[in-house]
Amino acid sequence: MFITCLDMEGPLVPEIWIEFAKARGIDELLVTTRDEPDYHKLMDYRIGILKKHNLKLKDIQETIAQMSPKEGAKEFLDELRSFSQVVVISDTFQEFATPLMKKLDYPMLFCNSLEVDKDGTITGFVMRLPGDAKLTTVKALQSLGYETVAAGDSYNDIGMIGQSKAGFLFKSTDAIIKEHPHIKAYEEYSDLLAAIKEVQGIK
Amino acid sequence: MFITCLDMEGPLVPEIWIEFAKARGIDELLVTTRDEPDYHKLMDYRIGILKKHNLKLKDIQETIAQMSPKEGAKEFLDELRSFSQVVVISDTFQEFATPLMKKLDYPMLFCNSLEVDKDGTITGFVMRLPGDAKLTTVKALQSLGYETVAAGDSYNDIGMIGQSKAGFLFKSTDAIIKEHPHIKAYEEYSDLLAAIKEVQGIK
Repeated sequence: MFITCLDMEGPLVPEIWIEFAKARGIDELLVTTRDEPDYHKLMDYRIGILKKHNLKLKDIQETIAQMSPKEGAKEFLDELRSFSQVVVISDTFQEFATPLMKKLDYPMLFCNSLEVDKDGTITGFVMRLPGDAKLTTVKALQSLGYETVAAGDSYNDIGMIGQSKAGFLFKSTDAIIKEHPHIKAYEEYSDLLAAIKEVQGIK
Repeated sequence: MFITCLDMEGPLVPEIWIEFAKARGIDELLVTTRDEPDYHKLMDYRIGILKKHNLKLKDIQETIAQMSPKEGAKEFLDELRSFSQVVVISDTFQEFATPLMKKLDYPMLFCNSLEVDKDGTITGFVMRLPGDAKLTTVKALQSLGYETVAAGDSYNDIGMIGQSKAGFLFKSTDAIIKEHPHIKAYEEYSDLLAAIKEVQGIK
């Protein structure tokens, strides 16, 4: 029995911080985990930028409300869920992800949460797990009697990809693909779906 | 952060074996975990009855195709999934559950699988985990940084209910409710939803 483990931002939906950076014209927020692998450092930096510009949670949520899943993501997930259990494993925050998950019919999501003060300022974040949370989550699912297949686009997906029976880079960057020549990389949902089906023995 | 853990048969959908027993008029298949807590014994017994009547997987799947979630179950799950991660944890089999999960927009399902031979005869079953699989699953979710709330109707739900921050009996029997006076019992989705919201601090 299989669980397919998918990264959220990149493979299924646009990068939330990038969309917000563009919407507000703040170039300092264009950095992602694909550029800065240390997520704590990245988040502390982002929270500092928000503070500098006096931007609150609701400002980011306004941008997210305008966002949609990537074209084809919903259809991909619909078909995937018809033959495999699916979980989305993300370093994003519940407060950001929920409206996007709604548009995908609420796949199970493992992610983190924000600390927000009374006036709506993001003051910090709570990481669900220390270390490589995606890897730890995949290991826990395996301990429950499942085999896993994983796909993601970034550095923080490499652990769960390596731990799984099979794993793929999806909609990743040239640099990351080049650094991991042993991991198959796909751009199209149809190709990723075919690869997942093959691993799971689905015709 | 919370995951709500729900039993499937009873709380969300009718008991599959009972529906099949009725559809085929086979009284010997009317026994469930609410009557026989030893699931291995129960399943071996059921497989024997199927063999005696020369009934195959596709015969049970025909009955399941006619079944629907309980009235209100879809709306309950839709609202629940808007504020909480949800997993369905069941002792049933993937081969039975998938069409019913489709009608509920595919909540994440932890369950077991069947062994079926070439001519479609059910020859055995693979339990995902030894022992109390629901309890083990809830503990693994907690190890991933979540608090859990659980609800179920039967003996095999008591472990996950006891392990969770809060747990409820839902659409259970008088006998089970009487044996577990410390567990709150509900019959209506609206009452269960209100109880889950209260635990999770949702207004």
